[in-house]
Amino acid sequence: MNSSLGMINAFDPSAASALDADEKEMIARRQRVLGPSYRLFYQHPVHIVRGEGVWLYDKAGRKYLDAYNNVPSVGHCHPHVVQAVARQMAVLNTHTRYIGDEVLDYAERLIATFPAVLDQVMFTCTGSEANDLALRVAKNATGGTGIIVTRLAYHGITETVSGISPSLGANSPLGPHVYLVDAPFSPAQAGAAEKVGPRFADGVRTALAQMEADGVKPAALIFDTIFSSDGVFADPPGFIAEAIAAVRAKGGLFITDEVQPGFGRTGEAFWGFLRHGIEPDIVTMGKPMGNGYPVAAMVARHEVLADFGARSRYFNTFGGSSAAMAAAAAVLDVIESEKLQDNSLKTGRMIQDGLRDLASRYPIISDVRGAGLFIGVEIAKNADGRLEPSSGIAAAIVNGLRERGVLISASGPSANVLKIRPPLPFGRAEATLFLDLLDDTLKWVVRIATA
Amino acid sequence: MNSSLGMINAFDPSAASALDADEKEMIARRQRVLGPSYRLFYQHPVHIVRGEGVWLYDKAGRKYLDAYNNVPSVGHCHPHVVQAVARQMAVLNTHTRYIGDEVLDYAERLIATFPAVLDQVMFTCTGSEANDLALRVAKNATGGTGIIVTRLAYHGITETVSGISPSLGANSPLGPHVYLVDAPFSPAQAGAAEKVGPRFADGVRTALAQMEADGVKPAALIFDTIFSSDGVFADPPGFIAEAIAAVRAKGGLFITDEVQPGFGRTGEAFWGFLRHGIEPDIVTMGKPMGNGYPVAAMVARHEVLADFGARSRYFNTFGGSSAAMAAAAAVLDVIESEKLQDNSLKTGRMIQDGLRDLASRYPIISDVRGAGLFIGVEIAKNADGRLEPSSGIAAAIVNGLRERGVLISASGPSANVLKIRPPLPFGRAEATLFLDLLDDTLKWVVRIATA
Repeated sequence: MNSSLGMINAFDPSAASALDADEKEMIARRQRVLGPSYRLFYQHPVHIVRGEGVWLYDKAGRKYLDAYNNVPSVGHCHPHVVQAVARQMAVLNTHTRYIGDEVLDYAERLIATFPAVLDQVMFTCTGSEANDLALRVAKNATGGTGIIVTRLAYHGITETVSGISPSLGANSPLGPHVYLVDAPFSPAQAGAAEKVGPRFADGVRTALAQMEADGVKPAALIFDTIFSSDGVFADPPGFIAEAIAAVRAKGGLFITDEVQPGFGRTGEAFWGFLRHGIEPDIVTMGKPMGNGYPVAAMVARHEVLADFGARSRYFNTFGGSSAAMAAAAAVLDVIESEKLQDNSLKTGRMIQDGLRDLASRYPIISDVRGAGLFIGVEIAKNADGRLEPSSGIAAAIVNGLRERGVLISASGPSANVLKIRPPLPFGRAEATLFLDLLDDTLKWVVRIATA
Repeated sequence: MNSSLGMINAFDPSAASALDADEKEMIARRQRVLGPSYRLFYQHPVHIVRGEGVWLYDKAGRKYLDAYNNVPSVGHCHPHVVQAVARQMAVLNTHTRYIGDEVLDYAERLIATFPAVLDQVMFTCTGSEANDLALRVAKNATGGTGIIVTRLAYHGITETVSGISPSLGANSPLGPHVYLVDAPFSPAQAGAAEKVGPRFADGVRTALAQMEADGVKPAALIFDTIFSSDGVFADPPGFIAEAIAAVRAKGGLFITDEVQPGFGRTGEAFWGFLRHGIEPDIVTMGKPMGNGYPVAAMVARHEVLADFGARSRYFNTFGGSSAAMAAAAAVLDVIESEKLQDNSLKTGRMIQDGLRDLASRYPIISDVRGAGLFIGVEIAKNADGRLEPSSGIAAAIVNGLRERGVLISASGPSANVLKIRPPLPFGRAEATLFLDLLDDTLKWVVRIATA
């Protein structure tokens, strides 16, 4: 059995090579003391000791261009966030059962980034907790239990949300009343941009029909609007509307998981769903919200929350705590003051342009897609004149880039989509460096593939 | 309907009085922007703006002796923890898919506090996530689904663990295959200390028999060894062993939820289960672990984790992150350097002695129990010569203490058990002040109760 359990870009200890004595010892310590579900990235894992902006440094002092990590979204160790957390922790760090300024100030500021109908917030510590809560709320509000997710969705690791996360693998059981739909096609794959929405909606309508045949009442359709683990699908803007309307027509809600596209990452809008011009019923968010400080949230329409509130109190010990709110507010400060959404848009376009140029020279690049600084690059091989997804070449590129000092990963059902998702301050110089090193890696990959 | 949904010590807006304009506005802002599941403490909620050691300060500058909060366990805003987090956040705050020193150093240090059989750890952000994971692991390891919890247990707020948390109220549904048992009696209530264990075990055996009749295979018995929400039951040490043996005889595991008693709080041992001389299969921990920084964990025997590890990978974005480990390590530093476990033992005994003295003068105190700085005080009223639990008098004491500048709360099925659970640096002077102000409050309560 592959010890990675199907995880893309997982280190496989049985195939280990190139590890020095220190790395071997660290890995042995991990295997001894951490549970067996832990995984490392890369064939040659990286021992990181320091981070700054878009750079990570290993133990030997070598630096890596971070084109992958979306949690330190405003940059590793951003001083404004570090100072805000340190200042707040030194003054007060308590919970929401006392009246507190921090949680209200931030809640109002966060709500102001949403369309007016999305008017109430509940704080959690992780995106998993936010999605878990969103499912409880959706079930209460609709009286339904059926959940529709994409075929390779990832929404987190509580028992309930791991049950709607088929990307965790065949051994991780799906929950009851979970219905899978195919991820969207890209415009190139669909043949025409206008076919993308109806094809995605067809899948959702089929799932709804199956639910009806099973006597299951729909609760919600949930996906992230960048389809991160499904392989990155962003276009055309608006294509998700038809699927959402189909679910609503049957009494279900739409939950948008903004853990991946939220907080300016897609460049074109502060939230991924805004790119599509739709208004969800529930929005969840997490990872980049506190730049690494654990803070997450669920925002919803008050009428959606009413029934849950009438039945259930909800207290999340660290959720909405003073220091969490300080971290989250500082992140908003930096996104605004450093114009990171705009940077994401500009740098993202520059990278996509560069990738299309590479695609014209390397036929193994079969599709380039994404929005802002969330970009997917499909890798294919030539099989008897036909292009086929190649997880092997994608893995070689990911690991080849790692050897050249650039960190990315991959995703998608065929594990062949390069996932490029750097911290938002990634600028022109870093984009150029990234494209140069990718060019070099592609050259090497093509050489060994054809050798 | 009571808007508190049965929550003990919840502020009821419909009964609001004594609020100044600022407080009214803050509460109105909360109701507007936070979800309807949020609750405040006290009839007159407290607007906290600063914390230091065992003290909290409100907006008007008034100080409150904190005899309740267990999250800031080594003291509010402890400088060693604040500095450790600030230092780490400025250097690196990343996840466990890179090799990292912080997670391994802390994991080894944490494991060293456990009996040798408990040899592997998995990190989460919250106790809820740790308990949710523990249930997944227990189900995998046993092939069972039946869970036994106490009648007023609280284990957290994911869908799965809210399903084993009957203290959330009748409207919050229990999960499938959840069996409730009565909480223990105290030695005084049972008539003799040696009766406590067998009576508790009887309840567990009855639940196991019911499970067998239902065709449900046991997965786990889970409780916290201080029985926090059930009303605080600590004695005699060892009384839980018989119940645990009964579950193991049927193939189930014992999960001890150390979110409440762990990290030295009970004074007599670093972990609550160690007071009882037993070795659990799985241990979960949370709240005090990072003194307010969100960090939690599950520790287990490696053979219990093996099957879960073979089926499931598990990645918790912020779990085991560099800053979380810095916070957790700093907490261990302070517990050791300030001898807080020993302080908990000594101050706890002093408070319990003082409470017994008060009980001899105030018959409304019908029982005093606990371990270290986790103390329960049962409040009763005289009903035709018989003592009956009194939630009304307990609430008057909790709110009377709040008006006198002392923060505690209450618990138990009759909401009549004062819950005294201060930060661990609570010393002799604070204990004396607490007992004096409680004396004063009891005098006032008795006067109004008999007026």
